[in-house]
Amino acid sequence: MARPRPHVAVVGAGFAGLSAVKALRGAGVDVTLIDQRNYHTFQPLLYQVATAGLDAGDVAHQVRDVLRNERHARFRMGRVVAIDLAARTLAVERSLGPGPRDTIGYDHLVLAPGAVYHDFGVPGVHEHAFVLKSVAEAVALRAHLLRRFERAARDASLGAPPESLDVVLVGAGPTGVEMAGALVELFQRVLPRDYPELDLSRAQVRLLEALPHVLTPYHPATRAYVERVLRSRGVDVRTESQVRAVTADTITLADGTTLPHGTLVWAAGVRAHPLAEALAVPLDRAGRIPVHDDLSLPDHPEVWVAGDVAGPVGRGPGGATYPQVAQVAKQQGQHVARSLRARLAGRSTRPFHYVDLGLMAIVGRSAGVAELSPALGGLRFRGLLGWLAWLFIHLVHLPGHQNRLRAFIGWAFEWFTYDRHARLILDPLDRTLDRAGPPPPVAPVDRDALAVSAGPQPTG
Amino acid sequence: MARPRPHVAVVGAGFAGLSAVKALRGAGVDVTLIDQRNYHTFQPLLYQVATAGLDAGDVAHQVRDVLRNERHARFRMGRVVAIDLAARTLAVERSLGPGPRDTIGYDHLVLAPGAVYHDFGVPGVHEHAFVLKSVAEAVALRAHLLRRFERAARDASLGAPPESLDVVLVGAGPTGVEMAGALVELFQRVLPRDYPELDLSRAQVRLLEALPHVLTPYHPATRAYVERVLRSRGVDVRTESQVRAVTADTITLADGTTLPHGTLVWAAGVRAHPLAEALAVPLDRAGRIPVHDDLSLPDHPEVWVAGDVAGPVGRGPGGATYPQVAQVAKQQGQHVARSLRARLAGRSTRPFHYVDLGLMAIVGRSAGVAELSPALGGLRFRGLLGWLAWLFIHLVHLPGHQNRLRAFIGWAFEWFTYDRHARLILDPLDRTLDRAGPPPPVAPVDRDALAVSAGPQPTG
Repeated sequence: MARPRPHVAVVGAGFAGLSAVKALRGAGVDVTLIDQRNYHTFQPLLYQVATAGLDAGDVAHQVRDVLRNERHARFRMGRVVAIDLAARTLAVERSLGPGPRDTIGYDHLVLAPGAVYHDFGVPGVHEHAFVLKSVAEAVALRAHLLRRFERAARDASLGAPPESLDVVLVGAGPTGVEMAGALVELFQRVLPRDYPELDLSRAQVRLLEALPHVLTPYHPATRAYVERVLRSRGVDVRTESQVRAVTADTITLADGTTLPHGTLVWAAGVRAHPLAEALAVPLDRAGRIPVHDDLSLPDHPEVWVAGDVAGPVGRGPGGATYPQVAQVAKQQGQHVARSLRARLAGRSTRPFHYVDLGLMAIVGRSAGVAELSPALGGLRFRGLLGWLAWLFIHLVHLPGHQNRLRAFIGWAFEWFTYDRHARLILDPLDRTLDRAGPPPPVAPVDRDALAVSAGPQPTG
Repeated sequence: MARPRPHVAVVGAGFAGLSAVKALRGAGVDVTLIDQRNYHTFQPLLYQVATAGLDAGDVAHQVRDVLRNERHARFRMGRVVAIDLAARTLAVERSLGPGPRDTIGYDHLVLAPGAVYHDFGVPGVHEHAFVLKSVAEAVALRAHLLRRFERAARDASLGAPPESLDVVLVGAGPTGVEMAGALVELFQRVLPRDYPELDLSRAQVRLLEALPHVLTPYHPATRAYVERVLRSRGVDVRTESQVRAVTADTITLADGTTLPHGTLVWAAGVRAHPLAEALAVPLDRAGRIPVHDDLSLPDHPEVWVAGDVAGPVGRGPGGATYPQVAQVAKQQGQHVARSLRARLAGRSTRPFHYVDLGLMAIVGRSAGVAELSPALGGLRFRGLLGWLAWLFIHLVHLPGHQNRLRAFIGWAFEWFTYDRHARLILDPLDRTLDRAGPPPPVAPVDRDALAVSAGPQPTG
């Protein structure tokens, strides 16, 4: 009988997991890719879903579509909740939450579950902030933003005191900066046409950053440009502003300032997915798993780690940590596949070497920044050229031909019409309209309980 | 002081409500359009969202976008729960459910809240069936369908007994027929590539109809063609099959037959929105409001009724009822605006006259039927021509330029690649993955509680 092909379990269908699966094609292994969702999320564009530029389906791509060309791989939808390193098994929930679990055995394990938001212990973040880590969250944030405007329009028609329409973004990394740029355009260009009854100058976008600058890893000239553009477009950029606490409608800074908010987006940072804790090894401060320079787990050469959960890479104090971004995740996924192939062939593995291509972000219409890494010449673009470079790179990397075409159409329409496609309030609450119990009861009018509309009154 | 312009409240942003608002442009009135959602739902294409052909955003179009060119109209998002005919006021919920309400006064009221599903008293429908009346419901149905396949794939890998993948559609009107055609193609052309581990021949699509034929109002030759095509493509069409009861996994017919199902879609009929009951007038058997032939409410010349809630039209036993379809709704919305203009100008109103253009439906790829009404020559098309006619008409009527382009792209991709864009499991459950309490606890493996995977086992 032929010896069975080694079984590789890959946990996570993000950039790292998918690139590992693809790079294992032809390696003589059977792969089971496991994810809690049936689609890959293109996280860099989630903020565009939240700001009504793109549809949810534009930035999500079904995993089984990716695997159609990968005959060595199968998909399993489920959440991995435990890892037994000794028995070489994973426990996968049968359905969400407590209840029966299935075991999946492995010969090699590739751990790439990604990152979750990090609240740094600030109280109230979990309860009151939106985090841009999933499609569902982006859709909910969009619904929340638009519902605030609908309520403001209602209150204006009733002469009621206005609630805050301000959006506070915490963290001026690429997500915070791009979201701020997209929001301020939404408020200034798109929503005034939707809400002629509202004075939108009172809808303020604030971008808070604990460090002295936005986009810390970028060149000082780039940072100055980004800050200048954001401010000129009306964003209230506040650097060296650390957040101490958050409530449903306020945010308190370390210096005691309290700002009102209608919507709070937490983009201050991420930490490794808590599944990392399942390995029962010491983790770094961001919850990441220290690995050998070939990305294998110390003492467990059959376990490999890639993406946002990996680091420091290389043992000892000299271990390198890499930014938790798509580029690193993709390259680590590929490197894990290379290391695994070497191991299976009895060759020695090589250290992971990160090829930094550079950084890019957009601040809004016609305003982007792109920096090639020093190894590539260190060239910097900004303005229209940076914006076009960003669009091109994101279109190329968005998975799925139709997704690319749909995103392109969305951006083209936005460019020509200053409009945003998907201003839909479509969240879980929406479905309760048809499903929550029998059709809505029709109650008699209780006039005492009613606020009287300031709109036109009956004339006769 | 100038006399204030009359205030017209329009309830419902469906086909009837929107066409009434547009036709009131320049009529010297102020309009408040009220809907519980901030978008118009293009209901005829909801089944394509449910079968993964189109994105949710493709068939929804924000009401405020429609109103940008209608300066006489404002939008109010909210659910109307009571009507006081004597005081000429509506009560609108402040937020969903019990709680404070606002009053909106009117001089004229246009009632166009549409229809809800009608279970005809069959037990279990409300609890266990999906109804294709909203975007949220279509997205939930798509998630349910795909989740069944993911579970089947899991069970297959564990060697567990398979659950039913059958879909039972009740009601062979256009929705049932089109959904059956779309589903059987999904099962035969699309999902086998996604699920090579499953034998999809056991995923049966059943279409049940209580009457002797599918598409009752159509020409007998058309009906025969549709039944033949559906059967040849693998749909189990059962006419004269009345449903007696429904459970989570079975459906029982009047003749005692019990069929298993994994998914149940109720497309057997609709009744008027329960808001019709708020008028406290006698309703017809489908819950519709009897109206004068100018579509005004008897004894209340300031109240107008249009769309799925209107009927019979013209008092007495000779009153006409019209099918509850988009065409009728649009024309009635326009007629209400005409009647209202006449009333305001002191002219007498005219009776509503329905211009029947004809009927159309598609059975799947390259197979459609279209019948021009006898008044237009009575020509009938079927096959490719009927299919192209259907595509053209639906593209033309889909509101929003970008929606049209996106739907066209979806259909073009599907035509060339036999693929469906949006096979995403993206429902309210999805968001619980990031939001439900703190990050998932990582539990130790309890080996006794685990089912053992039939997948490759550790080799040592």
